Amino acid sequence: MKTICAEFMGTFLLVFLGSGAVLFAKGDALTIAIGFGLAITISAYAFGGISGGHFNPAVTTAFMINGRTSVGEGLVYIVSQIVGAIAASACVRVIVDALKLPANQMAQTDFPKLSVGAAFFVEALATFLFLVVILNVTSNDHGNGDFAGLAIGVTLMLLIIFSVNLTGASLNPARSIGPAIFAGGSALSHLWLYIVAPEVGAVLAAFASRFLMDTED
Amino acid sequence: MKTICAEFMGTFLLVFLGSGAVLFAKGDALTIAIGFGLAITISAYAFGGISGGHFNPAVTTAFMINGRTSVGEGLVYIVSQIVGAIAASACVRVIVDALKLPANQMAQTDFPKLSVGAAFFVEALATFLFLVVILNVTSNDHGNGDFAGLAIGVTLMLLIIFSVNLTGASLNPARSIGPAIFAGGSALSHLWLYIVAPEVGAVLAAFASRFLMDTED
Amino acid sequence: MKTICAEFMGTFLLVFLGSGAVLFAKGDALTIAIGFGLAITISAYAFGGISGGHFNPAVTTAFMINGRTSVGEGLVYIVSQIVGAIAASACVRVIVDALKLPANQMAQTDFPKLSVGAAFFVEALATFLFLVVILNVTSNDHGNGDFAGLAIGVTLMLLIIFSVNLTGASLNPARSIGPAIFAGGSALSHLWLYIVAPEVGAVLAAFASRFLMDTED
Amino acid sequence: MKTICAEFMGTFLLVFLGSGAVLFAKGDALTIAIGFGLAITISAYAFGGISGGHFNPAVTTAFMINGRTSVGEGLVYIVSQIVGAIAASACVRVIVDALKLPANQMAQTDFPKLSVGAAFFVEALATFLFLVVILNVTSNDHGNGDFAGLAIGVTLMLLIIFSVNLTGASLNPARSIGPAIFAGGSALSHLWLYIVAPEVGAVLAAFASRFLMDTED
Repeated sequence: MKTICAEFMGTFLLVFLGSGAVLFAKGDALTIAIGFGLAITISAYAFGGISGGHFNPAVTTAFMINGRTSVGEGLVYIVSQIVGAIAASACVRVIVDALKLPANQMAQTDFPKLSVGAAFFVEALATFLFLVVILNVTSNDHGNGDFAGLAIGVTLMLLIIFSVNLTGASLNPARSIGPAIFAGGSALSHLWLYIVAPEVGAVLAAFASRFLMDTED
Repeated sequence: MKTICAEFMGTFLLVFLGSGAVLFAKGDALTIAIGFGLAITISAYAFGGISGGHFNPAVTTAFMINGRTSVGEGLVYIVSQIVGAIAASACVRVIVDALKLPANQMAQTDFPKLSVGAAFFVEALATFLFLVVILNVTSNDHGNGDFAGLAIGVTLMLLIIFSVNLTGASLNPARSIGPAIFAGGSALSHLWLYIVAPEVGAVLAAFASRFLMDTED
Repeated sequence: MKTICAEFMGTFLLVFLGSGAVLFAKGDALTIAIGFGLAITISAYAFGGISGGHFNPAVTTAFMINGRTSVGEGLVYIVSQIVGAIAASACVRVIVDALKLPANQMAQTDFPKLSVGAAFFVEALATFLFLVVILNVTSNDHGNGDFAGLAIGVTLMLLIIFSVNLTGASLNPARSIGPAIFAGGSALSHLWLYIVAPEVGAVLAAFASRFLMDTED
Repeated sequence: MKTICAEFMGTFLLVFLGSGAVLFAKGDALTIAIGFGLAITISAYAFGGISGGHFNPAVTTAFMINGRTSVGEGLVYIVSQIVGAIAASACVRVIVDALKLPANQMAQTDFPKLSVGAAFFVEALATFLFLVVILNVTSNDHGNGDFAGLAIGVTLMLLIIFSVNLTGASLNPARSIGPAIFAGGSALSHLWLYIVAPEVGAVLAAFASRFLMDTED
C-alpha cells in the first residue's frame, strides 16, 4: 500500500506540476523543463525511499528487464503511475474549467511539426538516454547515492529542453495518458506513439547499460 | 530565544526575497518561484538546525498534529513567523516608497481570475502537496538528511510556478498576512482564505502522510 | 601564497562571470543573479578548502570581528580580493573594447532610481542578511558542511534578484571597486557607498549572529 | 570498453543536449548555458565513476600533463570524445532535416563579432578558468567529492553565459568538431581556433593549479 501511494503521488506531482508550468505559468521551454524535470527530483527524495521512485512505466519496464523490480510489483507500479497521472489531469481540468480555458488545453503531448517516424525517433532516443543515465546513477557499482535524485531530475529537464518543441517531451507513457484522456483529438489518436516509443527506448537502454556499462551486478 | 530568532529570520527572508522578485526584478513566474522557493532552502540550511525550519504556520500546524512539535512551542513559532513576515513587508514598504511605486504594490496575494471556491481548492491542494513532500523528506524512516532543505525549497518553487498566476501562490498564512497589512484592499478582505485553505491542506497532509505513508514512527 | 591565490581567483571569477552576465549575455535579473551568485558557489567548492572562501571584504570583516580570521590574514585577504576584482575588470575591459562597446559599460554598480539614503539602506540590509546566512551555515554548532557553498551562492543569487534594479546589487566592496575604476563617472563618485554600506551590514550581522543565534563557540 | 562507452556517452549528451537548447528550444543565454553546463553534471554523475568523466579533450590534456591520466588512456579518451560528439551531431542533423531547418544550423561555434585574436583570448581564458576549477574540485587535498560534478557543470554554465554571444562558448575541441563537420562554412575554417585555444588554456591551467594551488600530490 505504501509503495502504491508513493508511485501514485510521484506521478501525480510530475503531471500536475508540469502541466501547470505549461498551462498556467505560460512558461518558456526552460520553465516547463524545470516543472516536469525537478518534479521527478522532489518525488525521488520524498517517495523514492518507499518505492524506489519510478513514476514512469518506461522506467519500471527497464527495471523489470534487469531484475531490479519483479514483474508482479512492476505491473502494480505501472497501474499506480497511470492512475496518478489521470488523477493529476483531473485536478488540472478542474482549474482549466475554472479559468474558462479551451477544453483541449491539457498540456497533452503531440508532434504537429514532425512526421510519425521523426517523432518516434525523438521519443525513443530521448527515453533511451534518460534510462541510460538512470541505470548508471542508481547502479551499485558506480552509482551516486543521494545525488541520484538530483541527476535524474536534471537529466529529464535537459531532455525536455531538447524535445518540448518537437514532441512535447513525454518520455513517459503515464505522463501522456493522463492529459490525452481529457484533451482528446490527435493527442488521443497519437497516444500509441507515446506508449510504444518510450518503451522501445527503455528496453534498448536496459540491455545497453547492462552489457556495455556493467550497471547490473 | 534562538528558535524565535530562527523562525523570524527564515520567514523574513521568504517574504523579503520573494516580494523583491515580484516587485523589483519584475520577474516572470520562474524568477518569482525561485525567489520564494529557494528562500526556504537557504533558510532551512541557515536556521533549520536551530528551530527545525518551519517558516510557515501551516507547516507548524502539521508538525503539531503529528507530535513532532509541541503545541506550546508551535504557537511561539507561529507568532515569530507572522512577526517576521510583517517586518519583511515593512522593509519592502520602505523601498516601495523610495521608488514612488503605488502604495498597494506589496506583492500581496489575491485571485482576480478565480472564484472563491476555485482559489480555495488551489491553495488547499498546493499546500497539501507541499506538506506531503515535507513530511516525507523529513521522516525518520525514509527521509533525506541534508537534501531535505533542497527538496523542500524546490517543491515550493514548482508549486509557485503552478499557482502564481492563479492565487498568487501563498501556501503560507504568514506570507499573505505581511503584505496584506500594508496593501489593504481585496488582499486584506481575502486574507481569511490564505489562512484557512493552507491550514486545511496541512491538516489533511498530516493525516495522509501518517496513515498512508508511515512518515511518523 | 596558496590562500592569496584562492582569494584572488574566487573574487576574479565572481566579478568576471557576473560582469559577463550583465554585459555579454544581456541577461535578465535571473541570469545576472545566477552569474554572480553561483560564481560564489563554484569558487567556494574550488578554493574554499584553501582559504575558507571569502571573496568579499565584508565577509572577511565579519570573520575578523568574530575571530574566525586573524586581522593580519584578513587584511591580506582583502588586498587579494580587490586585486582579483581589478584583474577581472581588466579582462572584461579587453573584451568590451574588442566589441567596441561604450567605454563606460563595465557592469559597475550605481543607484539612478534611489536616493543615497535608500541605496545605503538596501546595500546594508542585503549584506546584513547575506552575512547572517553565511555565519549560520558555516557555524560549528549548526552549520551545513558541503551544502554551505551551495546555500551561500543561492543566498547571494536571491539577494541580487531583489536588489539588482535598485543598487546594482553589490554587497561586496571588491565587486564594486573593480568595475568602477574602469567605468569612472558616478560609479566612481558613489563608490564610497558600496564600501561603507556592506561593511556596516557585515558588522551588524557579526554581532547579531554571535549573540542572538550563537554562531560562534 | 566501459571507459570508452562512458566518454562517448558523456560527450554525446553534452553535444546533443546543448545543441537542442540552441536549435529547438530557441533558448536565451541562460537556457543554452544550462543545456551544455548541466549536461556535464549529469554525465559526471552517470559515467564519471567509470572513466573519471572528462568528456573534453582539453580536460584530458590537463589530466595527462599532471599525470592523473596516462598518455595512452588519454588518447583513447580523446578519440572516444570526438566520436561521441560527431554521433550526437549526426542525431541532431536527422532532426534538423526532419524540421526542414537550414542545413547550416547545427549549433556550431563561430565568432562573427570578434577578431581572431579576441576570440582566441576568450576561448583560452574561459578554458583556463574552467580547468582551474576542475583541477581544484577534484584534487585529493581540497576536493569536494560528490559535489565536484555539480560544481564543474555550474562552472561551465556560467562560462557559457559569459561567452556564448562572443565565441559560441566551446571550451572543448570535441564540442566544436561535431557540429562543424555537418555545418561547414566558417565554423569549419575556424575550427583550428576551437582546438588550439582551449588546449592552450588547459595547459596553462594544469601548471598554474599544480604550482600555485597544490592541486597535485
